[in-house]
Amino acid sequence: MSNWSTHFESYNEQHLNELLEFLRIPSISSLPDHADAVREAGQWVAARMQTAGIENIQTMETGGHPVVYGDWLHAPEGSPTVMIYGHFDTQPVDPLELWSNPPFEPQIRDGRIYARGASDDKGNMFVPILAVEALLATEGKLPINLKFFFEGQEEIGSPQLPNFIEAHKDFFACDTIISADGGQYSEDEPALLIGLRGLCSLQIDVQGAGSDLHSGMYGGAVMNPLHALAQIIASMRSVDGKILVDGFYDNVRMLSDEDRALLAKIPQTDQDIMDQVKVDALFGEPGYTMLERRWARPTLEVNGMWGGFQGEGVKTVLPNKAHAKITCRLVADQDPQQVVDAITAHVKKHSPAGVRVTVTPGESMAKAYLMPTDYPGNEAAAAVHQELYGKEPYYIRTGGSIPFCSLFREKLGVYTVNFAFGLQDERAHAPDEFWRLSSFERAKEAYCMLLHELAQIRF
Amino acid sequence: MSNWSTHFESYNEQHLNELLEFLRIPSISSLPDHADAVREAGQWVAARMQTAGIENIQTMETGGHPVVYGDWLHAPEGSPTVMIYGHFDTQPVDPLELWSNPPFEPQIRDGRIYARGASDDKGNMFVPILAVEALLATEGKLPINLKFFFEGQEEIGSPQLPNFIEAHKDFFACDTIISADGGQYSEDEPALLIGLRGLCSLQIDVQGAGSDLHSGMYGGAVMNPLHALAQIIASMRSVDGKILVDGFYDNVRMLSDEDRALLAKIPQTDQDIMDQVKVDALFGEPGYTMLERRWARPTLEVNGMWGGFQGEGVKTVLPNKAHAKITCRLVADQDPQQVVDAITAHVKKHSPAGVRVTVTPGESMAKAYLMPTDYPGNEAAAAVHQELYGKEPYYIRTGGSIPFCSLFREKLGVYTVNFAFGLQDERAHAPDEFWRLSSFERAKEAYCMLLHELAQIRF
Repeated sequence: MSNWSTHFESYNEQHLNELLEFLRIPSISSLPDHADAVREAGQWVAARMQTAGIENIQTMETGGHPVVYGDWLHAPEGSPTVMIYGHFDTQPVDPLELWSNPPFEPQIRDGRIYARGASDDKGNMFVPILAVEALLATEGKLPINLKFFFEGQEEIGSPQLPNFIEAHKDFFACDTIISADGGQYSEDEPALLIGLRGLCSLQIDVQGAGSDLHSGMYGGAVMNPLHALAQIIASMRSVDGKILVDGFYDNVRMLSDEDRALLAKIPQTDQDIMDQVKVDALFGEPGYTMLERRWARPTLEVNGMWGGFQGEGVKTVLPNKAHAKITCRLVADQDPQQVVDAITAHVKKHSPAGVRVTVTPGESMAKAYLMPTDYPGNEAAAAVHQELYGKEPYYIRTGGSIPFCSLFREKLGVYTVNFAFGLQDERAHAPDEFWRLSSFERAKEAYCMLLHELAQIRF
Repeated sequence: MSNWSTHFESYNEQHLNELLEFLRIPSISSLPDHADAVREAGQWVAARMQTAGIENIQTMETGGHPVVYGDWLHAPEGSPTVMIYGHFDTQPVDPLELWSNPPFEPQIRDGRIYARGASDDKGNMFVPILAVEALLATEGKLPINLKFFFEGQEEIGSPQLPNFIEAHKDFFACDTIISADGGQYSEDEPALLIGLRGLCSLQIDVQGAGSDLHSGMYGGAVMNPLHALAQIIASMRSVDGKILVDGFYDNVRMLSDEDRALLAKIPQTDQDIMDQVKVDALFGEPGYTMLERRWARPTLEVNGMWGGFQGEGVKTVLPNKAHAKITCRLVADQDPQQVVDAITAHVKKHSPAGVRVTVTPGESMAKAYLMPTDYPGNEAAAAVHQELYGKEPYYIRTGGSIPFCSLFREKLGVYTVNFAFGLQDERAHAPDEFWRLSSFERAKEAYCMLLHELAQIRF
């Protein structure tokens, strides 16, 4: 048994009590009333880092919720400098009535801690602090240089971070980032997240006549914006899911045979997804598997569409306005602006006479994030997983977007290795969020091991 | 000068004052608070019919607003029996602030009576009572047998009339109906309304996954109900407006060369309509003119369509529900149920896998109404128009539906000749509704002439 394991064993109860204390702070970043609680959570983190032996701790202002920084930079010449990321803010708690215990009064039941933020991300972000404390206590030093970057606005999309990081590029310079926000594939199967999709969005507005018209008087002679919109939307995707916008796929990085082989290893079947979302058939771009469609191919989805009468019964109106909101998930190496431009041109080409159609791009634009499977940071993490789980990790991607991975890549030029221990059934963002005590213990071991593995790497 | 003209001249001021009195009764049929006022308007009509010399006057209960009946049945053996229709209820008055005078305190300005109901339909329906009074006063008898059917629920779609007429079929038996609700083409151009479109309606509901999904997690792999709906709607109509539903046009009565020639005489240009509704291009089924499309061809229009996120900004949701409301305007000899069935089959055929699509027919179903141009009642009316205007009437249709024409045709087996003197600019249903004093005077003459013309006809 390693020294740190013995250390963790003796402090097990204390660490758990500290986590419960941390979880009692209602640090909901989306609610202005809770801004003080977010700041209090940051202060709790700063104080705990201090106790752990982390140095140069400071609460940094971003214009919104603060960032808490600390470092330990005494590793031997040539050692890598690694920055650990996590967030101390949480999602809101509605609907409150679906919780078994008040979300900020944590309870332990059946080896699980139930509380908002337990899995996402207070439990996971607390771990590297404890790992550092254990290494300093048992080994007197860390094997690498470390920086800590804990933020308080992840759950609202980190709106202040781009400018904040841009302004502190040199201060945050590092060789790689380890994110303590995320999870593993299952209780006994590890995973490494290597890809996230990007995003662009736009709204289509169709304007017909000067006012709503009587469908009896003008129907069949004046273009109906709802029909125009349906035609435009239908023209964008084939019935089986191929996107028909000229230029949409132009820069898409194709999946290599190796990429496809890695995805094929992941034990997720079409039936799993059908059961999960309760549909009797899946759908998608021909020539690709379900996981390839969800993780590695771009999409175009209407998020909302509306116009005319939505009430009960019948209204014989020929409406004069119709609207649709669209987001696209993008993959490497698509450029969000180029995709928006291609869709705008497509809409223009498919707009019928008799209506005015405008396309307004949304502000959210993000490039996809894709790191090499054999990135050294991944290899270090994979070695830890192999030892802890006795298995190689799955190399997974996600169809969603995590802004900070792209952000750090863009601003600091480094990849983020995802190394955290949440599991998919832990109801992050939902009532009765929980985290497994077994994950807490495994995570502390894992972080000590990872810091030693990272010491072997020259970035 | 005919005797009745002299009579009208001497009673001109009295008739106007009586009309103003009638207009002061706020008989809004859609407002429960005004039910007594609707009844009071019916009593006013009954009393005025009594004074005019009409017999057997009775207020008949319908279960809602009453019908006022009266007759004069002393014409020579073999004379036709004609029933005159009108309504004493009005539309609501909102928005009140756009009226120049209170809507039930009539004002006369520039030869026009401004009040709610002035044109639609109190002014017009008062006229035949005055005409009968004038004929009885000057000729001692009427040239034909007359029945009067004045209702108080036209502006709410006459919901009680179908059962009411069904229950009194024999009582209301007649050779033809003259409707004193409607209008002429312009101040110096007469018109006869010969066709109304029918109606059917349905709602399409598309159900996808068990709940709304994250567009990043499931986009591109789970069918989006909004895309499914857009495809279904787009499949129903060609881009240029031909309806692509199998069987939709099956029973449509084609326009004859004569029909088309009559429509072509009507001086309404595409530019008129473009100016009216403020669009820069019209649209419609290839091979037909604008008026043919609006009046004599069936339509399929989406009245409302919705699903997913309609708020500000971006929400990366893959919604699990989408909806559309559709109404079709029908022409002779389409059967509403057959059209609903054809659309339902079309929707089923075009519904993609992965969503459940249901079609729910609406309750409103009406067959189109189309009377022969040379129907004897029309010829009588045309003769009056020729004499009064020095012009043949235009034979117009309307794209909308007037329930009572179809209703009388179905229940009593007779056509309705539309003979009234409203004009299109008189803001029926809108603030500052008015009627022209010149129309009032012309209408009284016209009705006396028409009753004499009708005496020549053997139905």
